[in-house]
Amino acid sequence: MADNPSPFAKAAAAHEAEEGRALAPKFDVDGLVTCVATDARSGDVLMVAHMNAEALQKTIASGEAWYFSRSRRALWRKGESSGHVQRVVEMRIDCDQDAVWIKVEQAGPGACHTGRRSCFYRAVPLGMTGAVTLEFRDGEKTFDPKKVYGG
Amino acid sequence: MADNPSPFAKAAAAHEAEEGRALAPKFDVDGLVTCVATDARSGDVLMVAHMNAEALQKTIASGEAWYFSRSRRALWRKGESSGHVQRVVEMRIDCDQDAVWIKVEQAGPGACHTGRRSCFYRAVPLGMTGAVTLEFRDGEKTFDPKKVYGG
Repeated sequence: MADNPSPFAKAAAAHEAEEGRALAPKFDVDGLVTCVATDARSGDVLMVAHMNAEALQKTIASGEAWYFSRSRRALWRKGESSGHVQRVVEMRIDCDQDAVWIKVEQAGPGACHTGRRSCFYRAVPLGMTGAVTLEFRDGEKTFDPKKVYGG
Repeated sequence: MADNPSPFAKAAAAHEAEEGRALAPKFDVDGLVTCVATDARSGDVLMVAHMNAEALQKTIASGEAWYFSRSRRALWRKGESSGHVQRVVEMRIDCDQDAVWIKVEQAGPGACHTGRRSCFYRAVPLGMTGAVTLEFRDGEKTFDPKKVYGG
Protein backbone atom coordinates (compact mmCIF):
# COMPACT_ATOMS: atom_id res chain seq x y z
CA MET A 1 0.00 0.00 0.00
CA ALA A 2 3.00 2.31 0.45
CA ASP A 3 3.01 3.33 -3.18
CA ASN A 4 -0.76 3.74 -3.26
CA PRO A 5 -1.72 5.63 -0.11
CA SER A 6 -5.42 6.04 0.54
CA PRO A 7 -6.71 9.49 -0.35
CA PHE A 8 -9.45 9.16 2.26
CA ALA A 9 -9.43 10.70 5.71
CA LYS A 10 -9.06 8.34 8.65
CA ALA A 11 -12.39 7.08 10.00
CA ALA A 12 -13.45 9.71 12.51
CA ALA A 13 -15.32 9.85 15.80
CA ALA A 14 -19.09 9.70 15.49
CA HIS A 15 -19.93 13.41 15.39
CA GLU A 16 -17.25 14.23 12.82
CA ALA A 17 -18.13 11.20 10.66
CA GLU A 18 -21.80 12.21 10.70
CA GLU A 19 -21.62 15.98 10.38
CA GLY A 20 -18.26 16.53 8.71
CA ARG A 21 -17.43 17.12 5.07
CA ALA A 22 -14.41 14.80 4.87
CA LEU A 23 -14.92 11.47 3.15
CA ALA A 24 -13.64 9.15 5.88
CA PRO A 25 -15.03 5.69 5.09
CA LYS A 26 -15.43 3.29 7.97
CA PHE A 27 -14.13 0.09 6.39
CA ASP A 28 -14.96 -3.14 8.23
CA VAL A 29 -12.39 -5.68 9.45
CA ASP A 30 -12.10 -6.96 5.87
CA GLY A 31 -11.48 -3.44 4.56
CA LEU A 32 -14.90 -3.13 2.93
CA VAL A 33 -17.91 -0.83 2.87
CA THR A 34 -21.34 -1.93 1.65
CA CYS A 35 -22.57 -0.49 -1.64
CA VAL A 36 -26.20 -0.33 -2.77
CA ALA A 37 -26.71 0.30 -6.48
CA THR A 38 -30.11 1.58 -7.58
CA ASP A 39 -31.41 2.22 -11.07
CA ALA A 40 -31.25 6.00 -11.55
CA ARG A 41 -34.50 5.94 -13.51
CA SER A 42 -36.77 3.44 -11.74
CA GLY A 43 -35.26 3.70 -8.26
CA ASP A 44 -35.21 -0.11 -8.01
CA VAL A 45 -32.38 -1.68 -6.08
CA LEU A 46 -30.25 -3.51 -8.65
CA MET A 47 -27.63 -5.07 -6.38
CA VAL A 48 -25.84 -4.92 -3.05
CA ALA A 49 -22.08 -5.44 -3.16
CA HIS A 50 -18.89 -4.32 -1.46
CA MET A 51 -16.09 -1.86 -2.16
CA ASN A 52 -12.60 -1.76 -0.71
CA ALA A 53 -10.64 1.50 -0.68
CA GLU A 54 -9.33 0.93 -4.19
CA ALA A 55 -12.77 0.13 -5.64
CA LEU A 56 -14.22 3.21 -3.97
CA GLN A 57 -11.37 5.34 -5.26
CA LYS A 58 -11.72 4.02 -8.81
CA THR A 59 -15.49 4.49 -8.77
CA ILE A 60 -15.11 8.11 -7.65
CA ALA A 61 -12.37 8.84 -10.18
CA SER A 62 -13.96 7.11 -13.18
CA GLY A 63 -17.68 7.57 -12.54
CA GLU A 64 -18.12 3.85 -13.24
CA ALA A 65 -18.85 1.23 -10.59
CA TRP A 66 -15.95 -0.86 -9.29
CA TYR A 67 -16.47 -3.45 -6.58
CA PHE A 68 -14.48 -5.91 -4.53
CA SER A 69 -15.60 -9.52 -4.85
CA ARG A 70 -15.48 -11.23 -1.47
CA SER A 71 -15.70 -14.70 -3.03
CA ARG A 72 -12.98 -14.07 -5.61
CA ARG A 73 -10.96 -11.76 -3.32
CA ALA A 74 -10.48 -9.47 -6.29
CA LEU A 75 -11.14 -5.97 -7.49
CA TRP A 76 -13.81 -6.02 -10.14
CA ARG A 77 -15.01 -3.44 -12.63
CA LYS A 78 -18.73 -4.05 -13.04
CA GLY A 79 -19.29 -5.05 -16.63
CA GLU A 80 -15.66 -5.96 -17.38
CA SER A 81 -16.68 -9.38 -18.69
CA SER A 82 -20.37 -8.81 -19.50
CA GLY A 83 -20.20 -5.27 -20.86
CA HIS A 84 -22.97 -4.42 -18.40
CA VAL A 85 -21.17 -1.43 -16.92
CA GLN A 86 -22.77 0.95 -14.46
CA ARG A 87 -22.36 4.67 -15.02
CA VAL A 88 -22.69 6.40 -11.68
CA VAL A 89 -25.09 9.33 -11.78
CA GLU A 90 -24.78 10.15 -8.09
CA MET A 91 -22.96 8.71 -5.09
CA ARG A 92 -24.03 9.23 -1.50
CA ILE A 93 -22.50 8.07 1.78
CA ASP A 94 -24.42 7.31 4.96
CA CYS A 95 -24.23 8.86 8.40
CA ASP A 96 -21.52 6.64 9.86
CA GLN A 97 -19.74 6.28 6.51
CA ASP A 98 -19.84 2.49 6.28
CA ALA A 99 -22.25 2.30 3.34
CA VAL A 100 -22.50 4.05 -0.01
CA TRP A 101 -25.46 4.39 -2.32
CA ILE A 102 -24.89 4.81 -6.04
CA LYS A 103 -27.60 5.72 -8.52
CA VAL A 104 -26.54 4.18 -11.80
CA GLU A 105 -27.39 3.96 -15.46
CA GLN A 106 -27.14 0.22 -16.03
CA ALA A 107 -25.77 -0.63 -19.48
CA GLY A 108 -27.19 -3.71 -21.18
CA PRO A 109 -30.10 -5.88 -20.13
CA GLY A 110 -29.29 -6.34 -16.47
CA ALA A 111 -27.10 -6.21 -13.40
CA CYS A 112 -27.55 -9.73 -12.01
CA HIS A 113 -25.24 -12.61 -12.86
CA THR A 114 -28.33 -14.87 -13.02
CA GLY A 115 -29.50 -13.01 -16.15
CA ARG A 116 -31.97 -10.60 -14.61
CA ARG A 117 -32.24 -6.84 -14.48
CA SER A 118 -31.98 -6.77 -10.66
CA CYS A 119 -30.66 -9.26 -8.12
CA PHE A 120 -33.88 -8.78 -6.13
CA TYR A 121 -36.26 -10.87 -8.26
CA ARG A 122 -38.00 -12.74 -5.46
CA ALA A 123 -40.44 -11.38 -2.87
CA VAL A 124 -40.73 -12.65 0.68
CA PRO A 125 -44.42 -12.83 1.65
CA LEU A 126 -45.20 -11.02 4.90
CA GLY A 127 -47.40 -11.95 7.85
CA MET A 128 -46.01 -15.48 7.95
CA THR A 129 -44.48 -17.56 10.67
CA GLY A 130 -42.62 -20.77 9.89
CA ALA A 131 -41.16 -21.76 6.57
CA VAL A 132 -41.42 -19.16 3.83
CA THR A 133 -41.98 -19.73 0.12
CA LEU A 134 -40.57 -17.00 -2.11
CA GLU A 135 -42.56 -15.48 -4.95
CA PHE A 136 -40.77 -14.65 -8.18
CA ARG A 137 -41.39 -11.03 -9.14
CA ASP A 138 -39.76 -9.33 -12.14
CA GLY A 139 -38.03 -12.72 -12.35
CA GLU A 140 -37.94 -13.04 -16.14
CA LYS A 141 -34.43 -13.45 -17.45
CA THR A 142 -33.47 -10.54 -19.66
CA PHE A 143 -30.32 -12.23 -20.93
CA ASP A 144 -28.66 -15.64 -21.01
CA PRO A 145 -25.96 -15.59 -18.33
CA LYS A 146 -24.14 -18.52 -19.94
CA LYS A 147 -23.73 -16.55 -23.16
CA VAL A 148 -22.67 -13.39 -21.35
CA TYR A 149 -20.47 -14.77 -18.59
CA GLY A 150 -19.49 -18.10 -20.13
CA GLY A 151 -19.70 -21.37 -18.26
CA MET B 1 -31.45 -21.76 20.06
CA ALA B 2 -32.97 -25.18 20.79
CA ASP B 3 -36.26 -23.71 21.93
CA ASN B 4 -36.38 -21.26 19.05
CA PRO B 5 -35.42 -23.16 15.92
CA SER B 6 -35.00 -21.11 12.76
CA PRO B 7 -37.92 -21.45 10.36
CA PHE B 8 -35.61 -20.82 7.44
CA ALA B 9 -34.15 -23.44 5.15
CA LYS B 10 -30.43 -24.09 5.42
CA ALA B 11 -28.35 -21.93 3.10
CA ALA B 12 -28.24 -23.85 -0.17
CA ALA B 13 -25.81 -24.41 -3.01
CA ALA B 14 -25.66 -21.59 -5.56
CA HIS B 15 -28.20 -22.81 -8.10
CA GLU B 16 -30.82 -23.67 -5.49
CA ALA B 17 -30.26 -20.41 -3.58
CA GLU B 18 -30.65 -18.44 -6.80
CA GLU B 19 -33.48 -20.25 -8.55
CA GLY B 20 -35.32 -21.92 -5.68
CA ARG B 21 -38.41 -20.83 -3.83
CA ALA B 22 -37.19 -21.63 -0.30
CA LEU B 23 -36.14 -18.71 1.85
CA ALA B 24 -32.65 -19.89 2.84
CA PRO B 25 -30.77 -16.80 4.01
CA LYS B 26 -26.99 -16.87 3.78
CA PHE B 27 -26.05 -15.33 7.11
CA ASP B 28 -22.45 -14.14 7.46
CA VAL B 29 -20.02 -15.28 10.16
CA ASP B 30 -21.77 -12.93 12.58
CA GLY B 31 -25.16 -14.40 11.71
CA LEU B 32 -26.31 -11.35 9.76
CA VAL B 33 -27.71 -10.39 6.38
CA THR B 34 -27.59 -6.85 5.00
CA CYS B 35 -30.88 -4.97 4.75
CA VAL B 36 -31.54 -1.97 2.51
CA ALA B 37 -34.64 0.05 3.41
CA THR B 38 -36.05 2.32 0.71
CA ASP B 39 -38.94 4.77 0.94
CA ALA B 40 -41.88 3.04 -0.75
CA ARG B 41 -43.03 6.33 -2.24
CA SER B 42 -39.88 8.17 -3.31
CA GLY B 43 -37.64 5.15 -3.87
CA ASP B 44 -34.86 6.87 -1.90
CA VAL B 45 -32.58 4.68 0.16
CA LEU B 46 -33.36 5.52 3.79
CA MET B 47 -30.81 3.30 5.55
CA VAL B 48 -28.63 0.22 5.35
CA ALA B 49 -28.65 -2.04 8.40
CA HIS B 50 -28.41 -5.68 9.39
CA MET B 51 -30.79 -8.44 10.42
CA ASN B 52 -30.07 -11.65 12.28
CA ALA B 53 -32.41 -14.64 11.95
CA GLU B 54 -34.66 -13.37 14.73
CA ALA B 55 -34.91 -9.84 13.28
CA LEU B 56 -35.71 -11.28 9.85
CA GLN B 57 -38.31 -13.60 11.34
CA LYS B 58 -39.97 -10.79 13.32
CA THR B 59 -39.99 -8.47 10.30
CA ILE B 60 -41.67 -11.12 8.17
CA ALA B 61 -44.21 -12.01 10.85
CA SER B 62 -45.08 -8.46 11.91
CA GLY B 63 -44.65 -6.49 8.69
CA GLU B 64 -42.59 -3.96 10.66
CA ALA B 65 -38.82 -3.59 10.39
CA TRP B 66 -36.66 -5.22 13.05
CA TYR B 67 -32.89 -5.03 12.89
CA PHE B 68 -29.86 -6.27 14.78
CA SER B 69 -27.55 -3.54 16.03
CA ARG B 70 -23.93 -4.56 15.58
CA SER B 71 -22.68 -1.85 17.94
CA ARG B 72 -25.18 -2.64 20.69
CA ARG B 73 -25.24 -6.41 19.98
CA ALA B 74 -29.00 -6.29 20.36
CA LEU B 75 -32.21 -6.94 18.52
CA TRP B 76 -33.91 -3.67 17.74
CA ARG B 77 -37.39 -2.79 16.57
CA LYS B 78 -37.00 0.27 14.37
CA GLY B 79 -38.88 3.08 16.07
CA GLU B 80 -39.08 1.45 19.48
CA SER B 81 -37.63 4.54 21.15
CA SER B 82 -38.33 7.20 18.50
CA GLY B 83 -41.76 6.08 17.32
CA HIS B 84 -40.34 6.21 13.78
CA VAL B 85 -41.44 2.70 12.86
CA GLN B 86 -41.14 1.31 9.35
CA ARG B 87 -44.14 -0.51 7.90
CA VAL B 88 -42.87 -2.95 5.30
CA VAL B 89 -44.78 -2.70 2.03
CA GLU B 90 -42.68 -5.30 0.23
CA MET B 91 -39.66 -7.43 1.03
CA ARG B 92 -37.31 -8.88 -1.58
CA ILE B 93 -34.26 -11.11 -1.26
CA ASP B 94 -31.29 -11.14 -3.60
CA CYS B 95 -29.85 -13.87 -5.79
CA ASP B 96 -27.47 -15.40 -3.25
CA GLN B 97 -29.79 -14.64 -0.32
CA ASP B 98 -27.37 -12.57 1.73
CA ALA B 99 -29.19 -9.25 1.33
CA VAL B 100 -32.80 -8.15 1.67
CA TRP B 101 -34.51 -5.05 0.33
CA ILE B 102 -37.52 -3.67 2.13
CA LYS B 103 -39.75 -0.94 0.73
CA VAL B 104 -41.16 0.86 3.75
CA GLU B 105 -43.60 3.50 4.82
CA GLN B 106 -41.49 5.49 7.25
CA ALA B 107 -43.52 6.83 10.18
CA GLY B 108 -42.55 10.23 11.54
CA PRO B 109 -40.09 12.74 10.12
CA GLY B 110 -37.16 10.47 9.37
CA ALA B 111 -35.18 7.24 9.57
CA CYS B 112 -31.74 8.55 10.54
CA HIS B 113 -30.56 8.87 14.12
CA THR B 114 -28.91 12.18 13.18
CA GLY B 115 -32.36 13.73 12.67
CA ARG B 116 -32.71 13.41 8.93
CA ARG B 117 -35.17 11.67 6.66
CA SER B 118 -32.47 9.39 5.16
CA CYS B 119 -29.02 8.37 6.35
CA PHE B 120 -27.66 9.27 2.90
CA TYR B 121 -27.63 13.07 3.21
CA ARG B 122 -24.17 13.69 1.73
CA ALA B 123 -23.05 13.30 -1.87
CA VAL B 124 -19.58 12.22 -2.94
CA PRO B 125 -18.48 14.31 -5.93
CA LEU B 126 -17.30 12.21 -8.87
CA GLY B 127 -14.38 12.60 -11.23
CA MET B 128 -11.98 13.36 -8.38
CA THR B 129 -8.70 11.88 -7.34
CA GLY B 130 -7.20 12.64 -3.95
CA ALA B 131 -9.04 13.90 -0.90
CA VAL B 132 -12.79 14.25 -1.31
CA THR B 133 -15.06 16.88 0.21
CA LEU B 134 -18.63 15.77 0.71
CA GLU B 135 -21.60 17.91 -0.32
CA PHE B 136 -24.64 17.99 1.92
CA ARG B 137 -27.77 17.12 -0.03
CA ASP B 138 -31.23 16.76 1.53
CA GLY B 139 -29.19 17.40 4.67
CA GLU B 140 -31.74 19.52 6.55
CA LYS B 141 -32.65 18.02 9.88
CA THR B 142 -36.33 17.10 9.99
CA PHE B 143 -36.31 16.47 13.72
CA ASP B 144 -34.16 17.08 16.77
CA PRO B 145 -32.45 13.78 17.56
CA LYS B 146 -31.74 14.84 21.14
CA LYS B 147 -35.46 15.31 21.79
CA VAL B 148 -36.37 12.05 20.07
CA TYR B 149 -33.58 9.75 21.22
CA GLY B 150 -32.50 11.56 24.39
CA GLY B 151 -28.87 12.28 25.20
